[in-house]
Amino acid sequence: MDFLEKKFAKLGAENAPGQEGRQKIKEIEMRGEKLTGTPVDFSHGDVDAFEPIPGSLDDFIEGVHIGGKQAYTEYRGSKTIREDTAQKLAQFTGANIDADQNLIITPGTQGALFLAMGSTVARGDKVAIVAPDYFANRKLVEFFDGEVVPVKMDYFDTTTGAGLDLTQLEDAFKAGVRLFLFSNPNNPTGVIYSEDEINGIGKLAQQYGVTVIADELYSRQIFEGKTYTHLCAQNTIDPEKVLTIMGPSKTESLSGYRLGVAFGSSEIIDRMEKLQAIVSLRAGGYSQAVMKSWFSEPEGWMAERIAQHQAIRDDLLTTLRTADGFKVRATEAGSYLFPRIPELDITIEEFVKVLRLQAGVIVTPGTEFGSQFTDSFRINFSQDHKAAVAAMERLVKIVELYRL
Amino acid sequence: MDFLEKKFAKLGAENAPGQEGRQKIKEIEMRGEKLTGTPVDFSHGDVDAFEPIPGSLDDFIEGVHIGGKQAYTEYRGSKTIREDTAQKLAQFTGANIDADQNLIITPGTQGALFLAMGSTVARGDKVAIVAPDYFANRKLVEFFDGEVVPVKMDYFDTTTGAGLDLTQLEDAFKAGVRLFLFSNPNNPTGVIYSEDEINGIGKLAQQYGVTVIADELYSRQIFEGKTYTHLCAQNTIDPEKVLTIMGPSKTESLSGYRLGVAFGSSEIIDRMEKLQAIVSLRAGGYSQAVMKSWFSEPEGWMAERIAQHQAIRDDLLTTLRTADGFKVRATEAGSYLFPRIPELDITIEEFVKVLRLQAGVIVTPGTEFGSQFTDSFRINFSQDHKAAVAAMERLVKIVELYRL
Repeated sequence: MDFLEKKFAKLGAENAPGQEGRQKIKEIEMRGEKLTGTPVDFSHGDVDAFEPIPGSLDDFIEGVHIGGKQAYTEYRGSKTIREDTAQKLAQFTGANIDADQNLIITPGTQGALFLAMGSTVARGDKVAIVAPDYFANRKLVEFFDGEVVPVKMDYFDTTTGAGLDLTQLEDAFKAGVRLFLFSNPNNPTGVIYSEDEINGIGKLAQQYGVTVIADELYSRQIFEGKTYTHLCAQNTIDPEKVLTIMGPSKTESLSGYRLGVAFGSSEIIDRMEKLQAIVSLRAGGYSQAVMKSWFSEPEGWMAERIAQHQAIRDDLLTTLRTADGFKVRATEAGSYLFPRIPELDITIEEFVKVLRLQAGVIVTPGTEFGSQFTDSFRINFSQDHKAAVAAMERLVKIVELYRL
Repeated sequence: MDFLEKKFAKLGAENAPGQEGRQKIKEIEMRGEKLTGTPVDFSHGDVDAFEPIPGSLDDFIEGVHIGGKQAYTEYRGSKTIREDTAQKLAQFTGANIDADQNLIITPGTQGALFLAMGSTVARGDKVAIVAPDYFANRKLVEFFDGEVVPVKMDYFDTTTGAGLDLTQLEDAFKAGVRLFLFSNPNNPTGVIYSEDEINGIGKLAQQYGVTVIADELYSRQIFEGKTYTHLCAQNTIDPEKVLTIMGPSKTESLSGYRLGVAFGSSEIIDRMEKLQAIVSLRAGGYSQAVMKSWFSEPEGWMAERIAQHQAIRDDLLTTLRTADGFKVRATEAGSYLFPRIPELDITIEEFVKVLRLQAGVIVTPGTEFGSQFTDSFRINFSQDHKAAVAAMERLVKIVELYRL
């Protein structure tokens, strides 16, 4: 295999959410009958069950009617929309954000992640990545020919926050890591880093001159009793060494418009814009107009959405904790759960396929988040409440059928 | 400077179309008065003067109402939309296109170009690029650490077609080039490669095992008396070695929806989808629904649009050919002109700035298309007809004011 063949062999996407139709896993003999019920695709949120922010389509249509000025914005995004967004994000996070220097609008948060990594990872660079964390993080490092240095997060230890091993993180920094990328709340576990953890990260990064990219995609959906700490507002680290990524694709259900933002380091933002110019020019011009609805939701809309998700979480936790051999930590923010299942006599990839074919339930295998997570799966429970609970009950039955 | 600093220093975007607000060129003393008139931004087409395909917004709205299924498509795009698009492109080009294997929907043609180059260019690879050609081509090769091997196109020689130097192309292939990327019609000159040139490219590529990426973005807007040859339908080259890029952003004015396609080699398309998964997941889901309007324009719409552009071209050619010291080849397809101007006593970048500030006219400096084009500029004449002609008259006056 030549260099690119090897690179793209590692960049498999067929187990990624939404790609089930392209899976090439061998047939498995089915045990027992099909389990009927409303099919549920837990690989991503259901924007039919939780609809986009009211008025978002109107904002888009208004963008189309503005015409050429909205279709062809600067590569970093429309100036007026950046100004509005910067002001709202500054208020939300407590950080200083200059709309002209410190913010770029991107095609989804995935777009922001890609541009940020392309702007900071050179060939051979060591990049610290939490295990488990969002599956694209590892793939991005590998695509840019960097080297992943995993840092353990013991997410079942509820005493310290998310459970990040700060000693291992410092060892990684000492060993030459120049960049640390992490999601908070963590994807796939839904746990929040404590203030101590965030300050620990900030101080270590400052001490060792490490740049930090914080993916805060789900940071608005915080469940009762939990608090959230924005690294960018803690003053522990040079602001030019921090980049924060957010977007309205999850809690706000605007994924179909492909919108995200990165804010922070002006040097990284400048590079991201140069890269954007050759990647896809800009976030869709008319879509950018939809940013107006973000952080401007109708009174009570966000509180209700959070309460509805917390109720689904609680029912799923009950189902999982009643089942034999499952282990799960309660989601603290966002819509992910990352349960550990009892030992099966099929692989996790086979389990995922059986579950889809026999029970109409799609989940993401734990191995997408780190090769060691062969006993776990991720769900996004932003789904129809009843259908989600029934689907989880079917999942528990499937586990029973294929247990060792 | 470290590796990334150097890379991003070369990846300048401040002279790219639409980025004028971010230019950092020193002040130039203005000669004479401001020239008044309707400001014209020739750096890209004016979608207010030439509006998007009728019904495209309705298709988008329908996509939003479809909901989750449209928001979350496979990374390569919605299956039904790929099927419709593949069938229409097969009819247009005469090539075989399997919707499942040979086509991907991308965020604009820029997205297609980026994914295609990221899937085919490894560190140190030699890539043949025409001079002049679209400015992002060179930047893409450099971003992926490839090496640009320029191939001359003598576009003022009207006897051979576009004027590509096929001997130089063969020399480049002999010297180890593995990939050839070119736009047809050529951006910035608007010339079409003749059938002989296309077959020459195909045969040489087949002989030397070179992969060819043909950017055919403007291939629907062919002016009277001109014929167009699609490399992908000529059977001169292994179909797995050809990728064609198109999209509805130009003639069809759908740039604001960020839509493009690449079709051809299944191996390259597979890689592009894997890369798409970490770049921006997919072309905007709702936007994909707008592909329905492409190649399904109302009866006569395309013919009228072409005629209107040909009329603008003719008037601009008259203005340029009447002016002293200008040289220009007539556009054969698309909306670009790439005139050569007489020698000035300011640089082309300074000329572009003066023109913008003194005459309200924005053009793209020739140097974006190759460092040697210091005496040329590009315009996209998809503009209001009268405003475009008046703007070109102001441009001629500015040239007079700053001539040596």
